[in-house]
Amino acid sequence: MMNQIKRVAIVGGTHGNEFTGAYLIKKFEQFPNLIERSSIETLTLLANPKAFELKRRYIDKDLNRCFLHQDLENPALLGYEEQRAKAIAQQLGPKGNAQVDAIIDLHSTTANMGLSILLGSLHPASLRLAAYLSSINPRVKVCSLMSPNSESAHLRSLCGLGMVIEVGPVAQGVLNPILFQETENIIHGVLDYFEACNQGTALQLPSTLTLYKYVEEIDYPRNAHGELEAMIHPQLQFRDYEPLHPGDPIYLTFDGRAIAYEGKETVYPVFINEAAYYEKGIAMCLTQKQQIAL
Amino acid sequence: MMNQIKRVAIVGGTHGNEFTGAYLIKKFEQFPNLIERSSIETLTLLANPKAFELKRRYIDKDLNRCFLHQDLENPALLGYEEQRAKAIAQQLGPKGNAQVDAIIDLHSTTANMGLSILLGSLHPASLRLAAYLSSINPRVKVCSLMSPNSESAHLRSLCGLGMVIEVGPVAQGVLNPILFQETENIIHGVLDYFEACNQGTALQLPSTLTLYKYVEEIDYPRNAHGELEAMIHPQLQFRDYEPLHPGDPIYLTFDGRAIAYEGKETVYPVFINEAAYYEKGIAMCLTQKQQIAL
Repeated sequence: MMNQIKRVAIVGGTHGNEFTGAYLIKKFEQFPNLIERSSIETLTLLANPKAFELKRRYIDKDLNRCFLHQDLENPALLGYEEQRAKAIAQQLGPKGNAQVDAIIDLHSTTANMGLSILLGSLHPASLRLAAYLSSINPRVKVCSLMSPNSESAHLRSLCGLGMVIEVGPVAQGVLNPILFQETENIIHGVLDYFEACNQGTALQLPSTLTLYKYVEEIDYPRNAHGELEAMIHPQLQFRDYEPLHPGDPIYLTFDGRAIAYEGKETVYPVFINEAAYYEKGIAMCLTQKQQIAL
Repeated sequence: MMNQIKRVAIVGGTHGNEFTGAYLIKKFEQFPNLIERSSIETLTLLANPKAFELKRRYIDKDLNRCFLHQDLENPALLGYEEQRAKAIAQQLGPKGNAQVDAIIDLHSTTANMGLSILLGSLHPASLRLAAYLSSINPRVKVCSLMSPNSESAHLRSLCGLGMVIEVGPVAQGVLNPILFQETENIIHGVLDYFEACNQGTALQLPSTLTLYKYVEEIDYPRNAHGELEAMIHPQLQFRDYEPLHPGDPIYLTFDGRAIAYEGKETVYPVFINEAAYYEKGIAMCLTQKQQIAL
């Protein structure tokens, strides 16, 4: 059994150039009846308004890496996003003892992630919610990309039941109407699920969940100056969630040489060629595909 | 007959976050033999290096709107791009009497423009080149988006035979390997065409060219504060170059109401939902489809 979910925060524009979430927040603020459910109080939050205004991911620093305990408590951190993180933690948190029972943070990516749910924990309540969402829309995929043994710095980590809806491919600074509608449908699915649980309504859940679980992040080949020496191999572009076998081409150098994946096991890359990750040194994130019994 | 084409400038990174062109320039500078032809001297130019370094379209102002005669000659214009435009005009121009015989400016777009050639003039030499390129790759489409009766402020306007290769859809700040290779193939087609013309080699050209010709640009519905009140209609997203008939849905408001296209004639939209055009007040550019006899 899940505890009652009384307060839910829907967050968008954590990255100012990811328009799907930001415009959904604006829509919900204009038409609040859309997210009303009888047993739930739903809050909406445009997390990084200044970055959204400038259509940039962030002003000083990636807001979605500002939610470590020690950073939230460090009075010396005065960058715009560092201050926004503290304000958001005050509004929704504190971290570990949040005023909301669930956080849905809306993101988009230039990778072909389709409709992805990124879980903030592997708590059974999270897994059941994800399983429900994938049962009502077979395009929904579920990832757990938390690096083991390190505290999450993501906004969703303010709350035990925090998750991201990550949709793509969509360019930064573009409002894609198809992904906008699909994201909105998933949000309705989440709220309907919580409402049903709160009211004790029995829901049909699948008995297993397919989970793509973090293995490691890998970078592009670079020269000594940090400049790209290769790009994603054309055969791998947009192939998120498909198997990558040892020996498969993964990069193509500018002089036309294919570089093979040298791992020992088949993996499932996600976030392939995400624009915002070039500066983070991430070409893609490798995952393992697992079946989880619920 | 076309005059001999002795000097060709290939330009990339005019917009710093359009990686296809910027990285092709870097590739050609590393492997100059790729663009060598016996009768042609080929120059390469990364047009906006500071914007490329910061992965932004521009620093102060869109460089590709800085090439009006009066602006190039105005000593009071001292923004970064205004100064870059003057330096580029010194290197390749002066406008109207350029030191190069052709300019190929490499761009990318978040719209589904496929492989587009944007002509800088309707001179027969430009039309024949475009016809040749569409004959060697049927995916190539040819546009003339010049607003009539106004001087072009584009970089390509420095030279009579100036054109843009515009590829998409691709997100800003992303190097898409497939579009990278396709753009490179078109550049080789251009150079091969010039080489053949210079050497008097007969080339098979189609007798007609399909040309998408500028009608007008239209904006999103906006409120009094300039904020979006609607998005591209899902049925229109990614439908660049397809016919839009009077009465077809064109926008979808946030409260779910479809807005129809109210023009009197069928048009062919291009640059639908280009990220960089939100700030310019352009949701798409409408064109007419014409057959031109060569």
